[in-house]
Amino acid sequence: MTPFLTELTAALGEKVSLNEAVRDHHGHDMSRLPAHRPDAVVFATGEADVVAAVTICATHGVPVVAVGAGSSMEGHTIPVKGGISLDLKGMNRILAVNDADFDAVVEAGVTRKQLNEYLRDRGLMFTVDPGADASLGGMASTRASGTTAVRYGTMRETVIALRVVTASGAVVETGRRVKKSSTGYDLTKLFVGAEGTLGIITEVTVKLHPIPEVTASAICAFATMEGAVQTVVETLQSALPVARIEFLDEVAVQAANAHAGLGLTVAPTLFLEFHGSERWVAEQSEAVRALALDNGGADFAWSTRPEDRARLWKARHETIYSNQSLRPGCKTYTTDVCVPVSRLAEAVLEARREADTAPFPVKIIGHVGDGNFHVGYLIMPGDEGEYAIADALAERLYQRTMDMGGTFSGEHGVGVSKLKYLRREHGGGVDLMKAIKAALDPQGIMNPGKLGQEG
Amino acid sequence: MTPFLTELTAALGEKVSLNEAVRDHHGHDMSRLPAHRPDAVVFATGEADVVAAVTICATHGVPVVAVGAGSSMEGHTIPVKGGISLDLKGMNRILAVNDADFDAVVEAGVTRKQLNEYLRDRGLMFTVDPGADASLGGMASTRASGTTAVRYGTMRETVIALRVVTASGAVVETGRRVKKSSTGYDLTKLFVGAEGTLGIITEVTVKLHPIPEVTASAICAFATMEGAVQTVVETLQSALPVARIEFLDEVAVQAANAHAGLGLTVAPTLFLEFHGSERWVAEQSEAVRALALDNGGADFAWSTRPEDRARLWKARHETIYSNQSLRPGCKTYTTDVCVPVSRLAEAVLEARREADTAPFPVKIIGHVGDGNFHVGYLIMPGDEGEYAIADALAERLYQRTMDMGGTFSGEHGVGVSKLKYLRREHGGGVDLMKAIKAALDPQGIMNPGKLGQEG
Repeated sequence: MTPFLTELTAALGEKVSLNEAVRDHHGHDMSRLPAHRPDAVVFATGEADVVAAVTICATHGVPVVAVGAGSSMEGHTIPVKGGISLDLKGMNRILAVNDADFDAVVEAGVTRKQLNEYLRDRGLMFTVDPGADASLGGMASTRASGTTAVRYGTMRETVIALRVVTASGAVVETGRRVKKSSTGYDLTKLFVGAEGTLGIITEVTVKLHPIPEVTASAICAFATMEGAVQTVVETLQSALPVARIEFLDEVAVQAANAHAGLGLTVAPTLFLEFHGSERWVAEQSEAVRALALDNGGADFAWSTRPEDRARLWKARHETIYSNQSLRPGCKTYTTDVCVPVSRLAEAVLEARREADTAPFPVKIIGHVGDGNFHVGYLIMPGDEGEYAIADALAERLYQRTMDMGGTFSGEHGVGVSKLKYLRREHGGGVDLMKAIKAALDPQGIMNPGKLGQEG
Repeated sequence: MTPFLTELTAALGEKVSLNEAVRDHHGHDMSRLPAHRPDAVVFATGEADVVAAVTICATHGVPVVAVGAGSSMEGHTIPVKGGISLDLKGMNRILAVNDADFDAVVEAGVTRKQLNEYLRDRGLMFTVDPGADASLGGMASTRASGTTAVRYGTMRETVIALRVVTASGAVVETGRRVKKSSTGYDLTKLFVGAEGTLGIITEVTVKLHPIPEVTASAICAFATMEGAVQTVVETLQSALPVARIEFLDEVAVQAANAHAGLGLTVAPTLFLEFHGSERWVAEQSEAVRALALDNGGADFAWSTRPEDRARLWKARHETIYSNQSLRPGCKTYTTDVCVPVSRLAEAVLEARREADTAPFPVKIIGHVGDGNFHVGYLIMPGDEGEYAIADALAERLYQRTMDMGGTFSGEHGVGVSKLKYLRREHGGGVDLMKAIKAALDPQGIMNPGKLGQEG
């Protein structure tokens, strides 16, 4: 045992694991990136554990990498420089729900499904929905979003305040539980999306919304991809507050059919959802339906029963698993781009055109109401040739996105392998990021090898 | 001439003014704070001027204080440590309006009325409305909001991206023109609300909204203050998307009547506005009307004609000028607090109770949908006794607000004299702010004596 591990174990006892299988498990995430085993795993059950672990790491200059549900797609939680994996899954208490203020205060390890389960009887909901049952601390750190961001915003708009443990082990509250404030630098927004490189989030205060009186889901198949995307653009331009507007290309519809037995027409398709009063939902959906019909859409297929709606959105969320049905044994190389809505049609069509040159299936799905879509390359694990082709396609996709004024991540984050794009997108902004990183984490122990450094 | 002024004048020629009257004019703002004359005023007409001025200031270690419309209420633009006042009013070009993406790119000196005038024919609007015809750069720097934030958000939600000149004279774009991104620290939100202490904003990209099909304004007088506030709380809890919901207490209504001849019943009053389709506005306003009637409200008095609406909101915005009619010759000592909505009734009632002990008129108005209200003390300039009483009342108001989990500024910002509250509200967060300030402005030349320092 090194002096570091001796001190860590003395302070945190059985919460520290040096077990190889446990360490291996904490060495990877959902991505295709190479694993890297941490020196130890600390299972924190409260903020005091986080403070103790970070303080000891700071004394010894050892890296700390926080992990929640482990659903990162970009290697955020892989301890690429070793050190400890600080597992926050045990910090899963819901600390307060303030019905009158529409907010909740939770420990970082609480997952979105857990919170929504808890809230249901109170008529409230937490709206950010990335598909995976991610932890709120992780979602905050990744600035996550998902299907409902078009209506309710991403974690950027949803996180009201945070408690964080800084690189020196201090506990800081980044803001108050108020709807607005003009007092000082926006520390909350600085930690949202910082990917654990500036401090460890231990508590998250989030905005809630009332469960709408009426929720109506519809599916609409289109003759062309252009028609589907154009419908999205026109819907946004009409300022209709759709709650969800998701695009699936033909390949994605095939996969969803095979995986979930949806029996959908194989065509470019929109999944839509409307929230509001009965009259207001009727008004919104009528307006969108008219736009769709004008753009070569078939009539809406409605899912009004909750169980049908659940099946529909489950199928959408599980698109990544459904890829097995298209190409058994494959792994999905997922990308994540976001462009101004005015460039969406061009961006999606160009991506599809290029995808058709690939020797493996490629599918496109997207939170198109935000201008955000994912091109997924279904490649065989270990096939270096396919991997290289996918890499080249992704590289061109990202560059084209940035050339259109877009961003190389709408919601998955930067993580490890996309760090190389940071300067291409942010230019001299990267120098400010590095200065902030150096100021708040002078030893460079908070999730090193990630944001705040050059790629 | 000092070597600094020689170099500045050589580089910027007639854009530099050393004239005493000009310097005096730039030494104060809308607040009651002591003026401080800058050493020179630079009238920038483009980003290159800002870069030149900041670079020369950096070389000589001279402070730079940017100023737009000069409508700060908290001394933000007073050059308390001397140096130059960098006047951006001449940077007033609207650079792009992207109808399809609902955004606009403007120079920092463009004012909100100028932008809305420009947008009107395109059916679009810029929604942040602090009353004063502030510049967008200034509004971004103060994280301003106003009457419509309850529906459309503050500058925090409205600013998409910025161009800034850093303390070393580098030009940085803080983000892309996309609806969301997960790539790196949120530099945009860091500069929003930084009050010019981390860099100078030269360009602002803001979110726009479509001008609603129908806009309907209503006034509702209440038997009690409790009834008015309770109506606000219940409206928010019903998730009704009111576009404006403003509170005026009896004293404020008297002032508005005297100033603008509104002829309103002297009672605690709500000014409301609804935006949407005809049916949707009818549905919203019916629901709020029912809540108001249940809480002792009189029936709604509607203003459907645009000119009546304009008169109404002009009266609301001019409440600060209308104070003259209550107490001729007075100056208004304005405060700005924001509490969680659940504490709003208690906070407003307590403020009114305490105000009634004052030997001068005190009025309360507020953007109550955000939990934000202003207590205004109408004191005589030069009366040190009244000033001291107002100071003590404000101190108690701010402390009580923070004790309720609120913030000592909802929208006016920190500026000079409220810097002393920063640690009371943010605790150790102030240490992070100071570290960020030191990292991005190591010489301390960007608006010194303000945020990023202790009070």
